[in-house]
Amino acid sequence: MNDEKLISSTHNPITRIRPDIQSMQAYKVQDASGMVKLDAMENPHRLPAALQAHLGQRLGALALNRYPDGRVNDLRKALADYAQMPDGFDIMLGNGSDELISLLALACDVPASAATDHKPASILSPLPGFVMYAMSAQLQGLQFIGVPLTADFELDEAAMLAAIAEHKPAITYLAYPNNPTANLWDDGTIENIIEAVGQQGGLVVMDEAYQPFASKSYINRIVQHKHVLLMRTLSKFGLAGVRLGYMMGPKALIAEIDKVRPPYNISVLNCECALFALENKDVFVTQAQDLIAQRAMLLDSLGMMPGVKCWKSDANMILVRVADSTKTFEAIKAQGVLVKNVSKMHALLNNCLRLTVGTSAENLQMLAALEKSL
Amino acid sequence: MNDEKLISSTHNPITRIRPDIQSMQAYKVQDASGMVKLDAMENPHRLPAALQAHLGQRLGALALNRYPDGRVNDLRKALADYAQMPDGFDIMLGNGSDELISLLALACDVPASAATDHKPASILSPLPGFVMYAMSAQLQGLQFIGVPLTADFELDEAAMLAAIAEHKPAITYLAYPNNPTANLWDDGTIENIIEAVGQQGGLVVMDEAYQPFASKSYINRIVQHKHVLLMRTLSKFGLAGVRLGYMMGPKALIAEIDKVRPPYNISVLNCECALFALENKDVFVTQAQDLIAQRAMLLDSLGMMPGVKCWKSDANMILVRVADSTKTFEAIKAQGVLVKNVSKMHALLNNCLRLTVGTSAENLQMLAALEKSL
Repeated sequence: MNDEKLISSTHNPITRIRPDIQSMQAYKVQDASGMVKLDAMENPHRLPAALQAHLGQRLGALALNRYPDGRVNDLRKALADYAQMPDGFDIMLGNGSDELISLLALACDVPASAATDHKPASILSPLPGFVMYAMSAQLQGLQFIGVPLTADFELDEAAMLAAIAEHKPAITYLAYPNNPTANLWDDGTIENIIEAVGQQGGLVVMDEAYQPFASKSYINRIVQHKHVLLMRTLSKFGLAGVRLGYMMGPKALIAEIDKVRPPYNISVLNCECALFALENKDVFVTQAQDLIAQRAMLLDSLGMMPGVKCWKSDANMILVRVADSTKTFEAIKAQGVLVKNVSKMHALLNNCLRLTVGTSAENLQMLAALEKSL
Repeated sequence: MNDEKLISSTHNPITRIRPDIQSMQAYKVQDASGMVKLDAMENPHRLPAALQAHLGQRLGALALNRYPDGRVNDLRKALADYAQMPDGFDIMLGNGSDELISLLALACDVPASAATDHKPASILSPLPGFVMYAMSAQLQGLQFIGVPLTADFELDEAAMLAAIAEHKPAITYLAYPNNPTANLWDDGTIENIIEAVGQQGGLVVMDEAYQPFASKSYINRIVQHKHVLLMRTLSKFGLAGVRLGYMMGPKALIAEIDKVRPPYNISVLNCECALFALENKDVFVTQAQDLIAQRAMLLDSLGMMPGVKCWKSDANMILVRVADSTKTFEAIKAQGVLVKNVSKMHALLNNCLRLTVGTSAENLQMLAALEKSL
């Protein structure tokens, strides 16, 4: 070994980056230019031109030169009203739910102690589920426990209760409805899981990202518990580009978690845009109603398509199984329609695709492309 | 002890929050309504009305319903051009520098090993300095090493080199210029520190938050090193409300750190607004020139004010020392002018106030209020 090599290896600054991060692949946002984009549960509807102009006037006139101020509390109040947050609860905001999920992992990163049977803090959720729950655990260096759903994508109550008893997770995520399976959970099973988590002092996060399209919410049930948080986002409401997540919970609990939030995490533009959207919530409610109607049309059509199995949905996505998901995905894509191939995410999703509900025209194009691609 | 108390204590979900976070005070943003706001290094200038209208049209017309896409790469390129980033370097974006500082702590949270003499990763910076460096270490559970400046706020080179040799910090922050002392550092001292950090494989972050007002930048010198990152923000440029931080460094190093960035951390509104500002950078450059001229006026006036000691500044703030900072701060505030009392931040800042450079009218009002408050 010569000296030059030795020096260059000693000095390599990349050795200061965590080895597990060095082995991670960088996340690539899929290029979708020119495609009918039905891969990411985006609301396909824009604001009417008149509202775009009004919004623009509001945003252009903001004091961009000043740090975000008390206006963010107006947004907290507007979101609490919109969600019908119960008394005694509080709300915190994140730069998307992504930030809230990261902050939760940070806040709960309690060192191993007698209280946790000398285990480090862990995060539990059913699988398949939203990838950020496991990612937040990995990035914070916490253990992640994934509990497989049943073959028909229901919660495996016995397995969940056993995993909770064994691992005493700090945080248990229940997406309601779930992604990518799009279903709600049995009421009794939810309560049994929440009770079991409460018995060992953990937190449950009900993630209602898809609430605008769901037939049920947990909002009226959270008052019964001191350890349940309810997380939502404006992404599927229609503002995916604006990055606005929110989380409600008992005042004392939110006060602790909110301490790790960067004080200026919501830009004045994102804040004012979210306020504007809530002032015009009827427009977004109408958009959601259209998507719910489109979902019914899609489920009817998919149900009659030979070679396609589909599951009922409480979200703006539909999970389908085909004979060869890779072949079908590529063939749909070749026809200019981008959906999500989730077949490699989990064994239970073998040969599954996730279809986002789009506009009437987009959905018809997608159905036609799918039919030719089976 | 009765059973009810026992159960309620066993079930308290707040025990799952880290004890050090439970003992933290929540950060309160100071209420400044109705005040002349000279406490936070905000650019006091707004965009001209015509530009506000153009910006509004751009923002209102964005596809808010879609997740951020490749447009963010246009912003990365525009910022790299603006900053004259050298070849072989890359740039990553944060939701304000705050997020970049947090992500750096996360990325460098390497467990104790032989490479670091079995010490956990640590973060080092001179003190007094920007509070987020220490905060990021605390939140991530890393050690923070603060090295006092000399009494005249210069780097204590010997103390810095000794601390670097002893602690082998993963990250060494040098704010250039520093906050709240507003000064640049000696060129030779910087290089000696960077060299010493490089010898033990650590990273140096040059934080140029105040670059628009500084007589020097490190941008031309970073090419000489493989372990130096250069961080900036659009906050002091004039977009504090928009939350846009950026960090440049050698491609291979940025690629690793960028892996821990949430993929959609820059909203489409923040992105487009930053692009618009860079397209109209002459407006902001003119604003900075005005503030630099105002700073000279303030330094002249403060220099002639009996009972006030002030230091030269390369930022849009001026550090002053008075006989009784608490009395003076409150008396200025009673006259409707809000500055920052930094006297409790560090022993070296005893009886010091930090004055933000405002508009001509604001500065005259502040000088008059100060003179009556000594």
